[in-house]
Amino acid sequence: MKLPFDKKEYLSRLKQVKESMDRSGIRVLIVNHPANMNYLTGYDGWSFYVPQGVIVFIDKDEPVWYGREQDSNGARLTTWLSEKNIYGYQDDYVQSLVKHPISFAVEIINEIEPKPYKIGVEMDSYYFNPRSYNLLQEEVVNAEVVDATRLVPLVRQIKSDTELEYMKDAARIVEKVMDKAMENIKPGIREGDAAAEVYRAQIKGTDEFTGDYPAIAPIMPSGKRTSTAHLTWADREYEQGDVVLLELAGCRYKYHAPLSRTVYIGEPPEDLVEISKVVIAGVEKVLDFIEPGKTCEEVEAYWREAISGSKVVKESRVGYSYGLNYPPDWGEQTASLRPGDKTVLKPNMTFHFMPGIWLDDYGFENSEPIYITEDGCECFVDFPRKLFTI
Amino acid sequence: MKLPFDKKEYLSRLKQVKESMDRSGIRVLIVNHPANMNYLTGYDGWSFYVPQGVIVFIDKDEPVWYGREQDSNGARLTTWLSEKNIYGYQDDYVQSLVKHPISFAVEIINEIEPKPYKIGVEMDSYYFNPRSYNLLQEEVVNAEVVDATRLVPLVRQIKSDTELEYMKDAARIVEKVMDKAMENIKPGIREGDAAAEVYRAQIKGTDEFTGDYPAIAPIMPSGKRTSTAHLTWADREYEQGDVVLLELAGCRYKYHAPLSRTVYIGEPPEDLVEISKVVIAGVEKVLDFIEPGKTCEEVEAYWREAISGSKVVKESRVGYSYGLNYPPDWGEQTASLRPGDKTVLKPNMTFHFMPGIWLDDYGFENSEPIYITEDGCECFVDFPRKLFTI
Repeated sequence: MKLPFDKKEYLSRLKQVKESMDRSGIRVLIVNHPANMNYLTGYDGWSFYVPQGVIVFIDKDEPVWYGREQDSNGARLTTWLSEKNIYGYQDDYVQSLVKHPISFAVEIINEIEPKPYKIGVEMDSYYFNPRSYNLLQEEVVNAEVVDATRLVPLVRQIKSDTELEYMKDAARIVEKVMDKAMENIKPGIREGDAAAEVYRAQIKGTDEFTGDYPAIAPIMPSGKRTSTAHLTWADREYEQGDVVLLELAGCRYKYHAPLSRTVYIGEPPEDLVEISKVVIAGVEKVLDFIEPGKTCEEVEAYWREAISGSKVVKESRVGYSYGLNYPPDWGEQTASLRPGDKTVLKPNMTFHFMPGIWLDDYGFENSEPIYITEDGCECFVDFPRKLFTI
Repeated sequence: MKLPFDKKEYLSRLKQVKESMDRSGIRVLIVNHPANMNYLTGYDGWSFYVPQGVIVFIDKDEPVWYGREQDSNGARLTTWLSEKNIYGYQDDYVQSLVKHPISFAVEIINEIEPKPYKIGVEMDSYYFNPRSYNLLQEEVVNAEVVDATRLVPLVRQIKSDTELEYMKDAARIVEKVMDKAMENIKPGIREGDAAAEVYRAQIKGTDEFTGDYPAIAPIMPSGKRTSTAHLTWADREYEQGDVVLLELAGCRYKYHAPLSRTVYIGEPPEDLVEISKVVIAGVEKVLDFIEPGKTCEEVEAYWREAISGSKVVKESRVGYSYGLNYPPDWGEQTASLRPGDKTVLKPNMTFHFMPGIWLDDYGFENSEPIYITEDGCECFVDFPRKLFTI
């Protein structure tokens, strides 16, 4: 099966990961996060509900994939790895109180790497848990376990041209998705019916390519439920006077284009109109400001200055790096646009600039997914910035 | 906002959880798994990509919810908890190398529970990770940290009548979803276009209620990709001679009805026809066999006997308990139908009986979601059992 990237690109990622391992003195790296597994090997399947991983040995040409035996054909079909580097564990390892898949991985490691060394694991991730951690500590021979949660994600931050192409494809999808959402939000329509059309558009994609499942379900609360950040749809019909927040994505080969917009059903109240103007003017100023060499915290500080004097208060971060990912998050969980983050912007980094405002009674969102260019930044998505009314 | 269950039901769940804590000598329980959080408090939101949890104190009437401040209005809207038990952490805790949300939770716990005690955590889950575990061990005062991964899920195993009602609602949805999939699988149609219709049907639900996002994306590989268990759709069109595996779900208030069926495009080969007959006859025998008092391993042994003498070999477990859940799994990760599992079947337990066969070149699946009754079991779903051809 054809993979989304040339083998050369996977090898170049692996090389960068090994360089980073080398700088940290890590000889063996276990990655359990499905986005990191995909990034290094191509592996793609909804098998991450059982423990699985990719093991990078600094001295070996190819990583090892390990996972459930019934998923090993998935590794044969979706990765560039040779047969000898695909290890499937039997089903009695699955959700057992007696056996654990990490022990299966440790056996492979103990055989290959007998000298004293550091082994990196993802300590602050969803897909490596304390039971695995304790067993690894007990069973691995001669190794010191160290945190490498951000090792692969930091390499992922800078996109290749092909990755940017897929993110642009995802942007074409989200434009259609957002249109479809706006078309379907009307008084008397069930929120779930609008959500159904959103999902359909996400996967249907364009005439040239279909879409992939995004890492986050459509966030599209209405009314009072817009006072908080992460609610989906509810068992209700839209009503006159509803604010509807839309945080939706397009996705291609697990590369995302997230986008937020806000809709008001009816004549919007004065203060919401004012907030929307302040936020959108602020977004546009910040987009002009962003360029390589500036830091994440400088961008956030500039945003705060851009909206100062207004009633808009935004106390959370205003964006984060993003790209390739799996549920539950499309963010890379590395750089954030917020105070204290000194990450320096570089060409081909990608951010979701997302200044969401959630007040006591409702919210307002207007985001832009962007990539850093040689001398500024570009928006992935072409969609009007305004408070939409229906 | 009206919650899906009466407060009485949440209180009865809490009581059962406290009884189980008491039996294990656990005075404080941190649940981070979103299904466990929802089960105890109603909390529902796509905020599980940041650390959050519900803390049960054995001596306190109400649990505590903690999470990101921007999600705390979500807790106000979707739980039965009083204002004083909702704790939001500031945004500088999010994805930070310096601060961690578990420290915020530990501060709450240290204040409330100063005596020596055992604290239960989910050691083998997605939503509690080694970094949190190490920080908890360091910062909690007077507590011994013990594994309680299965404490709440074991209470969740036995459904209330209202829970069964929602699972029946989900079954109505999956019947429509499966119909829609079959209608859209045709030579020349892009797999993503069929997947788009599946998603739409999942959320659109019925005239009476819309659906929720299932915990697993539509698993619907075709052709060679059916030789493995967990692939979704690919960038290709269906062709004459494709096997298509469908493992799809309906979902209502996060309660699931999963269902697997197999489709062949064209005249199916003899051996696939034979496999389908053996598997379906085996499924029907097993459904007649299941009743309260039997164990999970007895069910699996009976299945193996039912298909013995045929060419069908099934080496993985043939089912698991399931119900309320969030991505990445609709299974409860407690009981499995497999050798060694001595769980005794009881009325109102719910299983996905799922004897999937994945051979080198293709697979066959025909599952049934069931609930145990007083004297046998019932299928949730009404859908023909056969090898479908198109």
